[in-house]
Amino acid sequence: MQAVSDGAGWMVRIEDGDDLFAALTGFAKSHGIRAASVVEGIGLLKTAEVGYWNGREYSPHAIGVPHELIALHGSIADVDGLPSLHLHAALGGSDHAVVGGHLLRATVGILVEAYVRTFPGRRFGRPMDESFGLRRLDLEPGP
Amino acid sequence: MQAVSDGAGWMVRIEDGDDLFAALTGFAKSHGIRAASVVEGIGLLKTAEVGYWNGREYSPHAIGVPHELIALHGSIADVDGLPSLHLHAALGGSDHAVVGGHLLRATVGILVEAYVRTFPGRRFGRPMDESFGLRRLDLEPGP
Amino acid sequence: MQAVSDGAGWMVRIEDGDDLFAALTGFAKSHGIRAASVVEGIGLLKTAEVGYWNGREYSPHAIGVPHELIALHGSIADVDGLPSLHLHAALGGSDHAVVGGHLLRATVGILVEAYVRTFPGRRFGRPMDESFGLRRLDLEPGP
Repeated sequence: MQAVSDGAGWMVRIEDGDDLFAALTGFAKSHGIRAASVVEGIGLLKTAEVGYWNGREYSPHAIGVPHELIALHGSIADVDGLPSLHLHAALGGSDHAVVGGHLLRATVGILVEAYVRTFPGRRFGRPMDESFGLRRLDLEPGP
Repeated sequence: MQAVSDGAGWMVRIEDGDDLFAALTGFAKSHGIRAASVVEGIGLLKTAEVGYWNGREYSPHAIGVPHELIALHGSIADVDGLPSLHLHAALGGSDHAVVGGHLLRATVGILVEAYVRTFPGRRFGRPMDESFGLRRLDLEPGP
Repeated sequence: MQAVSDGAGWMVRIEDGDDLFAALTGFAKSHGIRAASVVEGIGLLKTAEVGYWNGREYSPHAIGVPHELIALHGSIADVDGLPSLHLHAALGGSDHAVVGGHLLRATVGILVEAYVRTFPGRRFGRPMDESFGLRRLDLEPGP
């Protein structure tokens, strides 16, 4: 992985074969990132799983062949001192049709290049919201 | 709604049941935003309507069931002192297929989290361009 | 074309009939941009061609009728002193279905509005990686 900063954000390159969540989690840990927007990301995914929230759980769709990563967006928060990622993705297949949703897991193919904007000095939280049954981003959590 | 600034941009959280356009318009008004890029946004939309410009009007497609919001991009300009939004969106359904286009209206489900980059001291316009029959972004309008 | 800067990034407007790659290449050249993230872009494309990397080449899909540009992301590097663009795009058709992938060529319809974040003082490279058979972004190339 490569990561270069412009002071406020980071351009990152994630490598062939890397687990996308592990790579971004490691990146966030090593730079102490507790609040960020995953602004954009493109590249290729070897495999992935996307989900659709059906009101109770993420209905999963496994993607077992490489797809172009067309859009990658989301946020990085901090839950109990560990990075918490929320990512959505749009993926293009060999027929050029696009599938996507909430990203559950992904393995990089060739590379993923992404831009992450940090909010220095801030911490975003992601507490469980029992009324919805899932964790929701909190931009101003208590200390 | 929550909104926190890093000096140049804002991370915003829009709440379950909110009208997306009303929420972003209110956000822009309350912070005096007259020029911005809607950098990214994800979450869920309960209902939405997307359009395809057929040369005369936006051919509409109503989406009556919840969809994952996979991509949200666009701009905020200022028309006659009021925020003018131009948003495009990609939405993932329960079959994980993606539909989208020009966003005509949207109601948030659970939450939408978005990053908006402002251009302090600038005003973007969006005057009607009669040759195309619609409003076009103008980055350097007159005073 | 219009382009206005906030010091770290540029909002750009690309005009009806323009070749998207030529416009962004000219923009990068004229402002000496050697490292950037194409953060977001929306608008309309009159025609386009998207590709899917099949392991040997980009399997192309020509799009001969106007499509809404829903997402445009990627990077600008510098190869032998010239801008090197890597762009992915999601496009919405008249049926509101979304197609996309690696963007091979595109002609703007009406307008494209995009936000480009630069990394002043940096140069990104994009050397050929023979193990994959294509150029890969290098965030820290030699001088």
